[in-house]
Amino acid sequence: MRVAVEEKVLNENQRLAQELRQRFQEHNVFCLNLISSPGSGKTALLERTLEAMPKDTKVAVLTGDIQTENDARRLARAGFPVKQITTGGTCHLDAKMITRALENWSLDDIGILFIENVGNLVCPSSYDLGEHAKVVLLSVAEGEDKPLKYPGIFVKSELCVINKIDLLPYVPFDLAAARENACKVNPAIELVEVSCTVRQGLDDWLDWVYRREQKAVGALTR
Amino acid sequence: MRVAVEEKVLNENQRLAQELRQRFQEHNVFCLNLISSPGSGKTALLERTLEAMPKDTKVAVLTGDIQTENDARRLARAGFPVKQITTGGTCHLDAKMITRALENWSLDDIGILFIENVGNLVCPSSYDLGEHAKVVLLSVAEGEDKPLKYPGIFVKSELCVINKIDLLPYVPFDLAAARENACKVNPAIELVEVSCTVRQGLDDWLDWVYRREQKAVGALTR
Repeated sequence: MRVAVEEKVLNENQRLAQELRQRFQEHNVFCLNLISSPGSGKTALLERTLEAMPKDTKVAVLTGDIQTENDARRLARAGFPVKQITTGGTCHLDAKMITRALENWSLDDIGILFIENVGNLVCPSSYDLGEHAKVVLLSVAEGEDKPLKYPGIFVKSELCVINKIDLLPYVPFDLAAARENACKVNPAIELVEVSCTVRQGLDDWLDWVYRREQKAVGALTR
Repeated sequence: MRVAVEEKVLNENQRLAQELRQRFQEHNVFCLNLISSPGSGKTALLERTLEAMPKDTKVAVLTGDIQTENDARRLARAGFPVKQITTGGTCHLDAKMITRALENWSLDDIGILFIENVGNLVCPSSYDLGEHAKVVLLSVAEGEDKPLKYPGIFVKSELCVINKIDLLPYVPFDLAAARENACKVNPAIELVEVSCTVRQGLDDWLDWVYRREQKAVGALTR
């Protein structure tokens, strides 16, 4: 019975996600869904990303957390539209939350929409948000075995951002093994290595974003 | 309807957890449930813990993961009974999984049972496993804001292990703020600071384990 209800919930989510996808397409919105463990650096990556974008870029962020509006406050400093989704206990964002959060925004004013999911390497991967692609972040402090232990999200992601590479000298993290493990569960996955604190590799990330946007909507919003 | 089914699942879990709790009491088993994000160092802490225990200690470990038996292999090196629970996709351990995993073990041969939950700072906190206490781990690489963003598990834990303190010089982590945030959501929580890689603070952790065991079963199994 539980499985049946879960299926019903996921089917309903899929329907709403499909609606979102169609709206994104109609309004030329390119949407990425960022997923990782708590503390892998999703917010820091978005801070660096927004800082790097020209002030007239039509970029917006929805950021999910169980509690607090801290991330929205951090991200709003860059001057682009940011909205916090506080789930109040739910371990993932779903398509209904995204639909509601977008209610007061005009999609014509958005070229790139980043969704920062709740920090959780498991549950968010089951909920389609209408995004063009999922991006999984992995901090080098977490260990190179994570793609093997949590394959679901690595299978569903187009890009894996290996973050906090400035910590490599201080943690037992095998970068080659991490890449190998990610490719083992998803041979098509692309990888970039970044550090948000020492600002390394961010061009690789931004290049990927703009290339993927080009592929998705066929027009640069820059 | 979904809420009703979730409640039913949780009620059934509660019943099984209560059975486990009673069996632990009858057989003088002290049980701890370790919860954290993926890669916070639960397995490393247990490795150091098992190494530090005299060879005749009646200690055993159940370790949960979505995929792989890596952690059981790592932990088995210490020579104590270890069993992997592979959930195959489920984002938490539940009381039924623990009951099944214990089927072939005699509880009279176990004095201390460590349960290493699936790496997830959200969902595992809702599932009672019959443990005497929950312990939450937080790595300094994750940021000092985590108790505020994921209050559920910090409210339910008796101890917070702040791990990877050897990384403090290299990460923007405010130790005082972390302690303050943990105490804000749970004024009764105790805290220890450890590094499993440079073997720092482990005595504080072991002291807490033995003190808590003493309180739980009134007898040292050492």
